Amino acid sequence: MVCRHPLTVRFGECDPAGIVYMPRILHYFHVASEELFAAVTGKPYAEVMASERLGFPSVHVEADFRQTLPLGARLEVEARLVRVGESSCTFRFAIRGEGEEEARATGGIVTVCIDLESRAKRPLPAWLRERLTAAVEPAG
Amino acid sequence: MVCRHPLTVRFGECDPAGIVYMPRILHYFHVASEELFAAVTGKPYAEVMASERLGFPSVHVEADFRQTLPLGARLEVEARLVRVGESSCTFRFAIRGEGEEEARATGGIVTVCIDLESRAKRPLPAWLRERLTAAVEPAG
Amino acid sequence: MVCRHPLTVRFGECDPAGIVYMPRILHYFHVASEELFAAVTGKPYAEVMASERLGFPSVHVEADFRQTLPLGARLEVEARLVRVGESSCTFRFAIRGEGEEEARATGGIVTVCIDLESRAKRPLPAWLRERLTAAVEPAG
Amino acid sequence: MVCRHPLTVRFGECDPAGIVYMPRILHYFHVASEELFAAVTGKPYAEVMASERLGFPSVHVEADFRQTLPLGARLEVEARLVRVGESSCTFRFAIRGEGEEEARATGGIVTVCIDLESRAKRPLPAWLRERLTAAVEPAG
Repeated sequence: MVCRHPLTVRFGECDPAGIVYMPRILHYFHVASEELFAAVTGKPYAEVMASERLGFPSVHVEADFRQTLPLGARLEVEARLVRVGESSCTFRFAIRGEGEEEARATGGIVTVCIDLESRAKRPLPAWLRERLTAAVEPAG
Repeated sequence: MVCRHPLTVRFGECDPAGIVYMPRILHYFHVASEELFAAVTGKPYAEVMASERLGFPSVHVEADFRQTLPLGARLEVEARLVRVGESSCTFRFAIRGEGEEEARATGGIVTVCIDLESRAKRPLPAWLRERLTAAVEPAG
Repeated sequence: MVCRHPLTVRFGECDPAGIVYMPRILHYFHVASEELFAAVTGKPYAEVMASERLGFPSVHVEADFRQTLPLGARLEVEARLVRVGESSCTFRFAIRGEGEEEARATGGIVTVCIDLESRAKRPLPAWLRERLTAAVEPAG
Repeated sequence: MVCRHPLTVRFGECDPAGIVYMPRILHYFHVASEELFAAVTGKPYAEVMASERLGFPSVHVEADFRQTLPLGARLEVEARLVRVGESSCTFRFAIRGEGEEEARATGGIVTVCIDLESRAKRPLPAWLRERLTAAVEPAG
């Protein structure tokens, strides 16, 4: 499963150079991962967190920015799961301008599953791991 | 030169899990790079941007998060330059809790120098490159 | 003209109480004002800023929050112009949950038009003032 | 008690006009209220939230922006409590540039005390209300 999330670059997301401030691009990745998560599980990200008392903090992130994302740009953030471990999920992302072939930004995030109370790492619940694993796509 | 920037984790920087939202950690890195930049050049980051009409967008970022950064934590963000190219700067960062030995988060950012009007990549001005190069530190 | 902008509350927009962090609600208002601006002028907000070298900083803001905006909520931000002066625009906003009658948050923003270079207040360009004035709606 | 919190305007806090994005100014207010809260109670804001399971969402905010806050500016955010009710706290804020007499931004926030689990409004705990009340200052 590949999830494509559209977004428009907002005034408040840009820096004095008139382009999206870098950490905000990681936020765009995260939002797309929430959408993918919901598409895969059939439940909103917030609901899984709340009902299962799970969190999914990032343990690794990396990104390459080839073209800037200017104010007002209409973008598409592509998200896919490329690996699901016992506790971890590895996402890959690509951001393209509307109608563009080449990605302006690419990157990846690795999350681990934790118990929200103890904040200790724990295995993904079986039902969740099964669904996430079934949605794994080789990187594009 | 190694720059150490103290900060306190604010309520609005934390997510529903009560820890710093990942993209915000990249913002912490960026703030520390601004401090390092000012310490190295003797001029505020904003002033160099404005007077020389330069921008320094990120072209690469990577980070590892070993321990979460909880609400209220007092942290120190260590920044150093590990490489200066014709147009690029490579920064390394480590975030530690007050009095802690081991870094909770580490990472790096690579920036390139652009002309703020044309947004085209350009060499670092000679005076700036010289100062930045003199401040290069091997990674810790 | 009344503009209604849909949005979903994202993980990174919520605070440790699991609800949208207050300043973020003002950001939601601002995003809706950008949408209204584009609908009224027929041009993206960014394009008017860039081509006319205008800025629209806020000089006043106020808001009341009656119900929290929880993580994952699907919301609609309603924006309208209630007054256009020589240089100023007064916006009113209301945020409702999907299918809700009563607003969870209401508020207003007053902006003034400035010259982007000098940052001095200036009258709205005639064409822009005309279009904005034609779109004024009595507050709901 | 009047709390004065220093801060430097960071690159990522500014918008394409090169000044602090308005919602971020409300964040500055919030940060100063956290500092005031800690000074008044002798405990970090986060600790009171966690140990008493309390939240303090905003129910009202208002602000006037007379002068912009430019990139790199060194500011002081003054916070005071002007009223403490059974459940509510009313804060007033003023932001000045270093060495400036006149405030660039002023505003106020009203918060109510809620139970973090039920999210229902509740009275301030007696010990907390007492300390907050003792810190009330007439508006400057």
